[in-house]
Amino acid sequence: MLNLEGDLPGLLRSLIDIESVSGNEQRITDEVETALSAYPHLKVIRDGNVLIARTELGRRERVVIGGHLDTVPIADNVPATITGEGDDLIVHGRGACDMKGGVAVQLSAAAALTEPNRDLTWIFYDNEEVEADRNGLFRITRERPELLAADFAVLGEPTNAGIEGGCQGTMRVAVTFTGIAAHSARSWRGHNAIHDANGLLRRLADHQAREIEVDGLVYREGLNAVRIDGGIAGNVIPDRCRVLINYRFAPDKDVAGAEAYVREVLAPYDLEVVDAAPGARPGLDRPIAADFAAAVGGTPGPKFGWTDVARFATLGVPAVNYGPGDPNKAHTDDEFCPAADLERCRAGFLAWLG
Amino acid sequence: MLNLEGDLPGLLRSLIDIESVSGNEQRITDEVETALSAYPHLKVIRDGNVLIARTELGRRERVVIGGHLDTVPIADNVPATITGEGDDLIVHGRGACDMKGGVAVQLSAAAALTEPNRDLTWIFYDNEEVEADRNGLFRITRERPELLAADFAVLGEPTNAGIEGGCQGTMRVAVTFTGIAAHSARSWRGHNAIHDANGLLRRLADHQAREIEVDGLVYREGLNAVRIDGGIAGNVIPDRCRVLINYRFAPDKDVAGAEAYVREVLAPYDLEVVDAAPGARPGLDRPIAADFAAAVGGTPGPKFGWTDVARFATLGVPAVNYGPGDPNKAHTDDEFCPAADLERCRAGFLAWLG
Repeated sequence: MLNLEGDLPGLLRSLIDIESVSGNEQRITDEVETALSAYPHLKVIRDGNVLIARTELGRRERVVIGGHLDTVPIADNVPATITGEGDDLIVHGRGACDMKGGVAVQLSAAAALTEPNRDLTWIFYDNEEVEADRNGLFRITRERPELLAADFAVLGEPTNAGIEGGCQGTMRVAVTFTGIAAHSARSWRGHNAIHDANGLLRRLADHQAREIEVDGLVYREGLNAVRIDGGIAGNVIPDRCRVLINYRFAPDKDVAGAEAYVREVLAPYDLEVVDAAPGARPGLDRPIAADFAAAVGGTPGPKFGWTDVARFATLGVPAVNYGPGDPNKAHTDDEFCPAADLERCRAGFLAWLG
Repeated sequence: MLNLEGDLPGLLRSLIDIESVSGNEQRITDEVETALSAYPHLKVIRDGNVLIARTELGRRERVVIGGHLDTVPIADNVPATITGEGDDLIVHGRGACDMKGGVAVQLSAAAALTEPNRDLTWIFYDNEEVEADRNGLFRITRERPELLAADFAVLGEPTNAGIEGGCQGTMRVAVTFTGIAAHSARSWRGHNAIHDANGLLRRLADHQAREIEVDGLVYREGLNAVRIDGGIAGNVIPDRCRVLINYRFAPDKDVAGAEAYVREVLAPYDLEVVDAAPGARPGLDRPIAADFAAAVGGTPGPKFGWTDVARFATLGVPAVNYGPGDPNKAHTDDEFCPAADLERCRAGFLAWLG
């Protein structure tokens, strides 16, 4: 059984040793359910492999704090190992960084915060590392959104134990150039679709990405070709060339606003929107967030990258990312989490909510 | 047994019905060997699945005439079928165009020309439709070049029964752009290799291909991107983009000259030569070629495309393409050969060499 009142590295180690690659979260969810059910201040709700634990103290405000229980596939990095000691102790293994470190902190804080100053909703969910329609948090936002009602949300993805507000939105658009195929020995009979891409690539190369302030944080955007494909054989004039472009946009606009901007910047090229996900405003201009920032210390920054905080945004709940570990180590075979980050994040939650 | 003295459509039909996809030329070579061995004016030499039949009459000049026996794979187009009649008769089936029609003409002419005005070397070979190092003609040029010594060569690939002189050379070069990978949400930490390709594509789009006269024929060149690849995922700034470029060059220059030209035109881009094959001069300024052109009639044109005539060029033998069928039907599932083309080509050989 998980010990939520022992040392954090030990708890993280136990979590890593319960293999929970996406789709295989049954056992870890069972363990989390058993551990949290031992605390009478928490009302525990199980829904598939999503586990929710709530305080119901009638506080004026409610905060939802959560993280995913699944990991990307194992790469000879389970069970966990420990190196160093004291302030330099580090836990290594699959999920140490993304994001069982955050889960360990949250479980420990959930047990400790028996009388929080705001009501708390802890949520642990499955299938974050795979297609969106399997995502447990996404499922709950559709099927039981009332369980997620709150004034503010915190997601425990790794942020080096600092606050990263909101997230960028992301949209992928494709531009397809169509030419006329011909034998390359008689190229004048064809029309080269790859050559036609030059102007679009030039436009992208010259594009100056904007920096946009939202709720006090400055989000830097990006508009980039991420893939190009053209040509079918070494002796054929290509009749097709496709450029896939990724637009990362500040959370001042929704998906429709993002699409309008890309169409304007890349006109007259004919764009096809391939997929899109909205961003999330950080909500750091709210008092509850200011309290959080003061308790945690440091200067909040914007989140560059799309995370599940955007799922809270769709419910109208501003959200930030706050968790132990270096985000650059996520998904790497040698991912790890410093014990100091675990302690700092736990202390942050207790200072803010205790 | 093949009947070399009957009607040409019947002979072509027999050849089509002997399946001879590249690598499976044993039986058709056996049949050709048996048929030609019946003629005492021919000295027959078998070397693997290459069959050579020579006259040795001590003539002042020698002409080598040849074609390949293999085809691309069958596509429900064997056995052969006949449509139309008289002047409109057409033979359909795999190889009808590329190039059993040419082989039928050559076999018929080889049997008929018992007292040619020049010595003749007929050559039928395997594996033309696959990698160059399996090509039977290429093998003989390396292992027994003395068998191919001649003043002039004719290859029977389809030319609509006209003379197409020499052939273009071909060279493929690659330009690889190297950037710095980064998450596309933090694109400023990377450098986009796809964007960097814009200037090269612009250069290719703007390039004006040259027209160059060689031995009285005008060869039109071509410089084209034939493939582009870049990017590894929809959320990663691409650190690599590769453009493959095909240069089709007039036979006024060799491979080194072609490389120098591409480097000059595309400077300062760093080129890697992927592969190259020299072209072949048409030699149409020689009296033997003028005789051929006069006997065949019509106006010789340049060959756009690389063919095995270049293998004769490497031996110092000028060469032209001359065969029945429309080259645009080569490799198509509905390839065919008009009987009129067969008769015209046979008459051309007899008029020139009889």
